[in-house]
Amino acid sequence: MKREEVLMEALPYIRKFHGKIIVIKLGGHAMVEEEVLDTIIQDVVLLQYVGMRVVLVHGGGPEITAKMEMMGKAPKFVEGLRITDRETMEIAQMVLVGKINDGIVSLIARHGALGVGISGNDGNLLIAQKMDPRKVVIGDEETEVDLGHVGEIEEVRPGLINDLLEKRYIPVVAPIALDRQGMILNINADHVAAEIAVALNAFKLISLTDVDGVMNEDRTRIYRRITTSEAAEMVRDGIIAGGMIPKLTGCVSAIKNGVGSAHILNGNKGHNLLIELFTDEGIGTIVMP
Amino acid sequence: MKREEVLMEALPYIRKFHGKIIVIKLGGHAMVEEEVLDTIIQDVVLLQYVGMRVVLVHGGGPEITAKMEMMGKAPKFVEGLRITDRETMEIAQMVLVGKINDGIVSLIARHGALGVGISGNDGNLLIAQKMDPRKVVIGDEETEVDLGHVGEIEEVRPGLINDLLEKRYIPVVAPIALDRQGMILNINADHVAAEIAVALNAFKLISLTDVDGVMNEDRTRIYRRITTSEAAEMVRDGIIAGGMIPKLTGCVSAIKNGVGSAHILNGNKGHNLLIELFTDEGIGTIVMP
Amino acid sequence: MKREEVLMEALPYIRKFHGKIIVIKLGGHAMVEEEVLDTIIQDVVLLQYVGMRVVLVHGGGPEITAKMEMMGKAPKFVEGLRITDRETMEIAQMVLVGKINDGIVSLIARHGALGVGISGNDGNLLIAQKMDPRKVVIGDEETEVDLGHVGEIEEVRPGLINDLLEKRYIPVVAPIALDRQGMILNINADHVAAEIAVALNAFKLISLTDVDGVMNEDRTRIYRRITTSEAAEMVRDGIIAGGMIPKLTGCVSAIKNGVGSAHILNGNKGHNLLIELFTDEGIGTIVMP
Amino acid sequence: MKREEVLMEALPYIRKFHGKIIVIKLGGHAMVEEEVLDTIIQDVVLLQYVGMRVVLVHGGGPEITAKMEMMGKAPKFVEGLRITDRETMEIAQMVLVGKINDGIVSLIARHGALGVGISGNDGNLLIAQKMDPRKVVIGDEETEVDLGHVGEIEEVRPGLINDLLEKRYIPVVAPIALDRQGMILNINADHVAAEIAVALNAFKLISLTDVDGVMNEDRTRIYRRITTSEAAEMVRDGIIAGGMIPKLTGCVSAIKNGVGSAHILNGNKGHNLLIELFTDEGIGTIVMP
Amino acid sequence: MKREEVLMEALPYIRKFHGKIIVIKLGGHAMVEEEVLDTIIQDVVLLQYVGMRVVLVHGGGPEITAKMEMMGKAPKFVEGLRITDRETMEIAQMVLVGKINDGIVSLIARHGALGVGISGNDGNLLIAQKMDPRKVVIGDEETEVDLGHVGEIEEVRPGLINDLLEKRYIPVVAPIALDRQGMILNINADHVAAEIAVALNAFKLISLTDVDGVMNEDRTRIYRRITTSEAAEMVRDGIIAGGMIPKLTGCVSAIKNGVGSAHILNGNKGHNLLIELFTDEGIGTIVMP
Amino acid sequence: MKREEVLMEALPYIRKFHGKIIVIKLGGHAMVEEEVLDTIIQDVVLLQYVGMRVVLVHGGGPEITAKMEMMGKAPKFVEGLRITDRETMEIAQMVLVGKINDGIVSLIARHGALGVGISGNDGNLLIAQKMDPRKVVIGDEETEVDLGHVGEIEEVRPGLINDLLEKRYIPVVAPIALDRQGMILNINADHVAAEIAVALNAFKLISLTDVDGVMNEDRTRIYRRITTSEAAEMVRDGIIAGGMIPKLTGCVSAIKNGVGSAHILNGNKGHNLLIELFTDEGIGTIVMP
Repeated sequence: MKREEVLMEALPYIRKFHGKIIVIKLGGHAMVEEEVLDTIIQDVVLLQYVGMRVVLVHGGGPEITAKMEMMGKAPKFVEGLRITDRETMEIAQMVLVGKINDGIVSLIARHGALGVGISGNDGNLLIAQKMDPRKVVIGDEETEVDLGHVGEIEEVRPGLINDLLEKRYIPVVAPIALDRQGMILNINADHVAAEIAVALNAFKLISLTDVDGVMNEDRTRIYRRITTSEAAEMVRDGIIAGGMIPKLTGCVSAIKNGVGSAHILNGNKGHNLLIELFTDEGIGTIVMP
Repeated sequence: MKREEVLMEALPYIRKFHGKIIVIKLGGHAMVEEEVLDTIIQDVVLLQYVGMRVVLVHGGGPEITAKMEMMGKAPKFVEGLRITDRETMEIAQMVLVGKINDGIVSLIARHGALGVGISGNDGNLLIAQKMDPRKVVIGDEETEVDLGHVGEIEEVRPGLINDLLEKRYIPVVAPIALDRQGMILNINADHVAAEIAVALNAFKLISLTDVDGVMNEDRTRIYRRITTSEAAEMVRDGIIAGGMIPKLTGCVSAIKNGVGSAHILNGNKGHNLLIELFTDEGIGTIVMP
Repeated sequence: MKREEVLMEALPYIRKFHGKIIVIKLGGHAMVEEEVLDTIIQDVVLLQYVGMRVVLVHGGGPEITAKMEMMGKAPKFVEGLRITDRETMEIAQMVLVGKINDGIVSLIARHGALGVGISGNDGNLLIAQKMDPRKVVIGDEETEVDLGHVGEIEEVRPGLINDLLEKRYIPVVAPIALDRQGMILNINADHVAAEIAVALNAFKLISLTDVDGVMNEDRTRIYRRITTSEAAEMVRDGIIAGGMIPKLTGCVSAIKNGVGSAHILNGNKGHNLLIELFTDEGIGTIVMP
Repeated sequence: MKREEVLMEALPYIRKFHGKIIVIKLGGHAMVEEEVLDTIIQDVVLLQYVGMRVVLVHGGGPEITAKMEMMGKAPKFVEGLRITDRETMEIAQMVLVGKINDGIVSLIARHGALGVGISGNDGNLLIAQKMDPRKVVIGDEETEVDLGHVGEIEEVRPGLINDLLEKRYIPVVAPIALDRQGMILNINADHVAAEIAVALNAFKLISLTDVDGVMNEDRTRIYRRITTSEAAEMVRDGIIAGGMIPKLTGCVSAIKNGVGSAHILNGNKGHNLLIELFTDEGIGTIVMP
Repeated sequence: MKREEVLMEALPYIRKFHGKIIVIKLGGHAMVEEEVLDTIIQDVVLLQYVGMRVVLVHGGGPEITAKMEMMGKAPKFVEGLRITDRETMEIAQMVLVGKINDGIVSLIARHGALGVGISGNDGNLLIAQKMDPRKVVIGDEETEVDLGHVGEIEEVRPGLINDLLEKRYIPVVAPIALDRQGMILNINADHVAAEIAVALNAFKLISLTDVDGVMNEDRTRIYRRITTSEAAEMVRDGIIAGGMIPKLTGCVSAIKNGVGSAHILNGNKGHNLLIELFTDEGIGTIVMP
Repeated sequence: MKREEVLMEALPYIRKFHGKIIVIKLGGHAMVEEEVLDTIIQDVVLLQYVGMRVVLVHGGGPEITAKMEMMGKAPKFVEGLRITDRETMEIAQMVLVGKINDGIVSLIARHGALGVGISGNDGNLLIAQKMDPRKVVIGDEETEVDLGHVGEIEEVRPGLINDLLEKRYIPVVAPIALDRQGMILNINADHVAAEIAVALNAFKLISLTDVDGVMNEDRTRIYRRITTSEAAEMVRDGIIAGGMIPKLTGCVSAIKNGVGSAHILNGNKGHNLLIELFTDEGIGTIVMP
């Protein structure tokens, strides 16, 4: 492909996305492999250069687990949710806000842009509520397990993010929030990204994961373009499974609440973000209304 | 070259040029071959899409000559300057303003942007003065030849262009102006482009011609990057000759009066404008301070 | 009449018209006799001085005909409409845009204000559509005659005019426009003036003609003040005839679409424009709702 | 003179004065004869209509004297200055602020504009200082006479007037002010007008009096146009005498401190204000730099 | 009460009232006893210091009576309304506007803020209408008594007050206004304050009187907090009597028309205004919706 | 002291401080005893309520030490500076940013205002440089000890803080920053507070400590008011010793670089912040130019 063709293909996208809000969820290897994160942040800074307004949301499960183990605490999960006692919550908060979030902000600075790390507490961004206890069957008995400091989003107040975007900062959001009683809670980062995208009336929600997109049952083919109803069908028919289910339902819900489109793509492969955004063909899966 | 590489190379330029004023002189085949002009206008509209503020300046000598011949008038030149009597001036004005200029504006509309055609009269953009008569030797005798309606720029009042750029129009300038006595004059378009670039404090002045750039004496090599002092030396040493001399001295003068850089490149080859602006290597000659 | 009485009568009008948009159609001798045009432009500049926002619209039929004859082409008309082949259209465009329009702009400059000449192409001001062929009876046979490049206004996008007025320029409009397929068309100037007045929600539409106003059947009396329904009646009852019919129906249509009032007056007599606007009595015919 | 000639003469002045600040001192009969004041206020409202920003300053000596006599107090003067005890001051304040000032404001309202009456206290407009005692010779003895509540302007803080002008009100100023100790003082209105004109950097200072302008010694001729140095000479050479001296020196001082020009004219004759401002010839005396 | 407790109690009120409009009616001794007025103005300036936008409205009945008696005129009243002939009106206007109003403005200046004294004429603030004649029984006969220059408010045009507040001045309003025929009228100051509070959509209306608030029948207890319906009941049941009736009905009407709350308190006791506004307990009576 | 006296004393301060920037360093018990921090944040929110723009800076030494010990690491100090290896730095960052900073922000939310936690990385607020190694004598030998991740401020870029203050957030700063090579460094919080106060051109710098202010040698008396030269003398003469030296020299340096005044007071005693700011007497030590 000739350079001028790449450019002529890309320029209309660059214009179309100018000034638009894009929420990017960083997941998978991005948070662990330095080089991957570095490439992503480089691309994010380029997006901001050409006029987009980017919001990053990150998780940090593996690092929390690692830090817990280092401190001699064994992580426990129920239905994939971490049972989070007070001490665990303190570790999670320190890792998410003090290590990962602040680290991403430093990396943005190294690539020449200005990031601002925030948690759900900053500017009262997120109001959460504690999750209901889970019913677990141990032996013959069903018992209720309190998940501790694990929450769901009840409300997003996007004022601070809008204020930061207006001043050309890249907000970096750690998935931590208070509930109305002032209890600190850990929240699923995919959930946070989708809810923030809705609250900001974002143009796009992009999920950077470890796989190349939404794939068919035998993993031989990526779906490049699916509608929200097709996505719902796929989930219902069991074509989609595992960790992709929540991502896909998150995308569907975001679009139904006003987000323009949602993308799922592999963040581990160099500059996929640019290819997805600035070429006609793209590289991952786009979910559209 | 991979797509992501083209993009990563281009994006920083796109950012750097955002909001910058670029004056482009259209010359050579551009004004005659429809397809060439079409490609150039397509690129110009893309430049505007991604945030640049583009001003076009055009000439029209060949078309004036053609129209004159059609009307049974033989064009006469002295030192390459057209002797322009009142009737010739009327033809020139009609061709430049009524045909070429309005035609470029239509083409911009067809490519989805908004152009506004102006001459030096509009908004008092240009104040000119009549050129002094030329001394010519005919046989043994030296005689003075009055050039008629041929002028030089005395003053640029860029208010109207700034107003149009502010409102996101693409101004298209025909090289016609009044002198202080109200006499209408035809002016060299390269001159107009350079003076307007200076008056606008433009970021770049780009001259689209029929050759690939500034070339060495035996036309085997293009100079990709020359300084104003190198350019002056080349002219002095006779390395540069013919029609390139005024273009190059125009570029030098523009840069010395504050324009960021000047480019000379072949406008006849598809999308050279994009390659020159958005790749590290470029394709023509750049003149820098 | 004493000076102070003239002033006391005029000042309230000056205040009332301050900042108001007035569309003036220049017709008849104005475009041919230099002195008449000079007086009108002098008045127009005074109007702008005291705060009005003036838009000029001009035609140019006689000059197009003259230029065609000079180039050995015989003009042909059907139902008063010029049959406009490609070559004729090029002449019309050159005369209207390159000669008349640019000439008016020069004259405005000479009187100390700033004009900007535009055609329907500039800023996509006018979208036209080709007129349907006319049925003509030649001998016994009815045949269809294609008018060529003759159009009607389909849409006015007044953005550019508003932008120019905001910056205190006097827009001068040539009645040329593209249709949606990019075909260039010549349009009736009275029509253009009325449609632009409507699109700008103008305060007044003024038609400068060769007669003193709307007159009674035997041309002994001018009607000074008529309502739109009276005007419609006059046309219906055959009191009004000839070239005044389209002007009057144009005024009626403009007023019905929101223009405040419309005036028809003799532009050939010195400073009628001032008398009409700044005296209680006026001098031509005013059409009101 | 034909109507169009009056208009063509007036319109450039109307444009030139648009947005300019004009300080008008009302004196003489204006404050006593209702009809005269009514005509002046009518003209003032017209001036405001056409875009000028007018500030009125008034005196009120005759009315103060009348009210004092009504209350059985005999007015006393030293060197033309009223000896103003506490009781006299209260009467002066009530007459100036409560009667004359509020009356002018009502009259402005009746003519359709919005006035705001202010004294030097409002918005701390004026800071005054008590005048030094006067030396008087009674019989053989020289004695000092304290003038009481009589002051001179020390400082003008034009903020309130500018705020009112910005909002299109006509400020009407009564010549009363506090000194830095909070003592209320009566001040010469000519002085107040000149100082306010300077503080506002006014375009014109106009003094409406009972005579037709600055006249020659034998009162046979009005000087229509004098420079500040000619004016100074006239005063020095005794050509000017009596009440005109302070008016003329006031004008000179105002112009030397930046006011554009000063006019002295007869306010008792109908609409002189309009004639002076909007005709080439004028009607009173203009003092220029 | 410890200092920090007073502060912690006051600060939230200070914040809550920031930028809010408060209309304060000055009555009773305030206008007669210098020390009382001085304390009130000191408090008013403090209120403005901390960000409130204060409008003062004053009456002046006792001073008008005094001045009339000084001038040998006997005041006459019908139903508590002063019969106001032309001469009386002139005295009222001079006292209210020239003495009391200008005096309050001076006092504001002495305390370091900027006041602007206005009557209903300034900026056409108030449009009034003459009151209907009163029926009076003298001996056996009922006769109609014309009250002369006594009016009621017909319309408030709060533009000038808003303009002054925006520029941080304290407007001081004298209860004088023209009717639509240009007749000058004296108006009840409580009425003016309530109507202005409504027109400004004020946050609070505060009436400073000679009593401590709304009291029960035997004057042993102040009601600290009453609703508009309780207030209406009290009046109906005769618990409230005399001069308090119009104040209370005024408050009720203001609140019903959008004013946030109304306060009636003793202005003669030092700094009650501060206590009422900045303590939880308050000191007078607050009327709420 | 009566309530109105407290109010009259406080209101002028409230006005004076309105819109002013105040940098508060939280130290000592504030970070450890919940109730103390709660009282301080309550006061800080009140300050913001009444219009001040508050910036908080906190340290966290004791908590870092505690966390290190919990993780089995023994803290080491040289000249009072913590030797900070990579692992220690990670703990410091997690404690400062993830625990203390985010905790203060939560507390601000609980008191009804909006805080935003930032480190020196956010918005590139702080650029630091690594501290030089310290020379230490161990036994007979002098050896150099590298302090690791310990830095000094090289540059403050206050853009982000100004942006947050403009939008009415309370910025909470953790003393962590990158150097120009991207190395993360721990910085003394007193130093950060003083440098930020200078960069913001703050009105006040307030240091909340464990002692009542600057005391004389035998700790019997607090100095209430000292100049920067007196402070310098005290340090030179050894009157001041220990931890107070750096605080005092920090204050002196801040004032010399444009901060209005600096206060040192006991943050452990309830609402001292309010007393210091809003009473004439104050409660701690004020350092003035």
